[in-house]
Amino acid sequence: MSEDAVRGVQADAPMTSAPVVTVAVCQLGPVFGAVPANIAMVETAVAAAAADGAEIVVLPELVTTGYVFESAEEARGLAEPVDGPSLRALTTLAADLDLVVAGGFAELATDGAVYNSAVLIDRSGVRAVYRKAHLWAQEQWWFTAGNHPPPVVDTDRGRIGMLVCYDLEFPEWPRTAALAGADLLCVPTNWPALPVPHGERPVDVVRAQAAASVDRIFVAVCDRVGPERGTDWVGGSAIIGPDGYPLALAGVGAQTLLARCELARARDKSTSPLNDVVEDRRPELYGRVTTAQ
Amino acid sequence: MSEDAVRGVQADAPMTSAPVVTVAVCQLGPVFGAVPANIAMVETAVAAAAADGAEIVVLPELVTTGYVFESAEEARGLAEPVDGPSLRALTTLAADLDLVVAGGFAELATDGAVYNSAVLIDRSGVRAVYRKAHLWAQEQWWFTAGNHPPPVVDTDRGRIGMLVCYDLEFPEWPRTAALAGADLLCVPTNWPALPVPHGERPVDVVRAQAAASVDRIFVAVCDRVGPERGTDWVGGSAIIGPDGYPLALAGVGAQTLLARCELARARDKSTSPLNDVVEDRRPELYGRVTTAQ
Repeated sequence: MSEDAVRGVQADAPMTSAPVVTVAVCQLGPVFGAVPANIAMVETAVAAAAADGAEIVVLPELVTTGYVFESAEEARGLAEPVDGPSLRALTTLAADLDLVVAGGFAELATDGAVYNSAVLIDRSGVRAVYRKAHLWAQEQWWFTAGNHPPPVVDTDRGRIGMLVCYDLEFPEWPRTAALAGADLLCVPTNWPALPVPHGERPVDVVRAQAAASVDRIFVAVCDRVGPERGTDWVGGSAIIGPDGYPLALAGVGAQTLLARCELARARDKSTSPLNDVVEDRRPELYGRVTTAQ
Repeated sequence: MSEDAVRGVQADAPMTSAPVVTVAVCQLGPVFGAVPANIAMVETAVAAAAADGAEIVVLPELVTTGYVFESAEEARGLAEPVDGPSLRALTTLAADLDLVVAGGFAELATDGAVYNSAVLIDRSGVRAVYRKAHLWAQEQWWFTAGNHPPPVVDTDRGRIGMLVCYDLEFPEWPRTAALAGADLLCVPTNWPALPVPHGERPVDVVRAQAAASVDRIFVAVCDRVGPERGTDWVGGSAIIGPDGYPLALAGVGAQTLLARCELARARDKSTSPLNDVVEDRRPELYGRVTTAQ
């Protein structure tokens, strides 16, 4: 599959049926730079999730390289093309285990740019590569920002959208995927840990819940764990229903969450007999939100 | 003040200083149709909040009429012009107690239309009237939807934005207020109660937290209590900081929440030394969110 063929796929095609699927998120602790070991860890976790019934598996952001790069050279040195070892391994897993897999990787593009990307793979191979459009902190120093909307891919496991971590802090972005027809938004994530007030849920999870709720979609966030070069992580993986409430929520440490998701719920945007979260929007009034003011 | 003068105020003027202010939300239980009694209840609650140090007071949606209308005629019969008894009472309170007051009322406009509106009043009088742009359920049968953006009013208590209840479920709308410079978003609300899973916070509050967080603004939601014609309410009033965590959160029943809000925090949109939630937006990519696609 050519690189161009997997950019910015937008599934505006007529709606196919929305199945009931078992979604897994594998909250893992990759080791920085240890690509073969991280791939092996992913293979083990994904196989276990499949054995537990998973049909869609979400993996963390940059799961095969780790996150805390210290230079552009280091990022470039670990980045891979879409036919590199990381995506070959995920493609084999998806085919062998009949899975849809979404996960993050450091992409070395044919034009030489390096992206913080996520891939969506099904048994037929790579269906979409998405390049993170909102870059967090030092990522700006080693990654190029993507310029395409979140892909929404029509699979026989539902219409699956994808974005990466900090993207989720911009409600326009999950909204864009929802308006393009996503039933389920897969969000490979590395949420750096920040102080959380006693008794509160991390605000990262709160934002994911709100996105699910206002867009009436399923959201599957796969976060990571394990200290890396002095950075700790929220470990806040969650599978959230279109009412905004978690179906599964991670505790401390590496673990896999599973949730049965009736994706048809995401195609019903009604919230009362007289309300519909898409129809009730007033896009003609939202000019300030875009550059078209 | 003319009706036109208080529509859709947008404070794009240069930033004035951002004070530290004490915000109160008075979670009250109005009685349907009992306008004089509801005004008296508001006067008592606002005076008590002022005595406790409040400088900005937020009241529920439609606080002087109640919410559960049964016909357009009933709504029209209880609606008031901007110089009616409800706003005269609030204007007197604001002047006598040196307060900024935001609250909801049923507005009878000079063109004969009836709106679910909110008013912002300071010691000088009415500063803005906002007409709810996203109407919930049967509201569509008796209210006309507003067509103006949330007002953002520059007061000596900070730059104050305002929207009403269901508006908050459209992230484009708090975003619009934040981009216009709001430090604090006042949200008069009547949240109908829906089942909440055990151990979960009502998703209404979750959405308000997310709005505060992604826009880095203070959000003061004033909900209501008390059954009314068979409808119960969340009673989910909250004052939320720009990090998305509540500074004060209502329990069961009528009550006033108070929180000291350092509004300058809402003018700092940075979330890391390299990130800023406004600067990091990609408005050139958000075309699908508006009609300008």
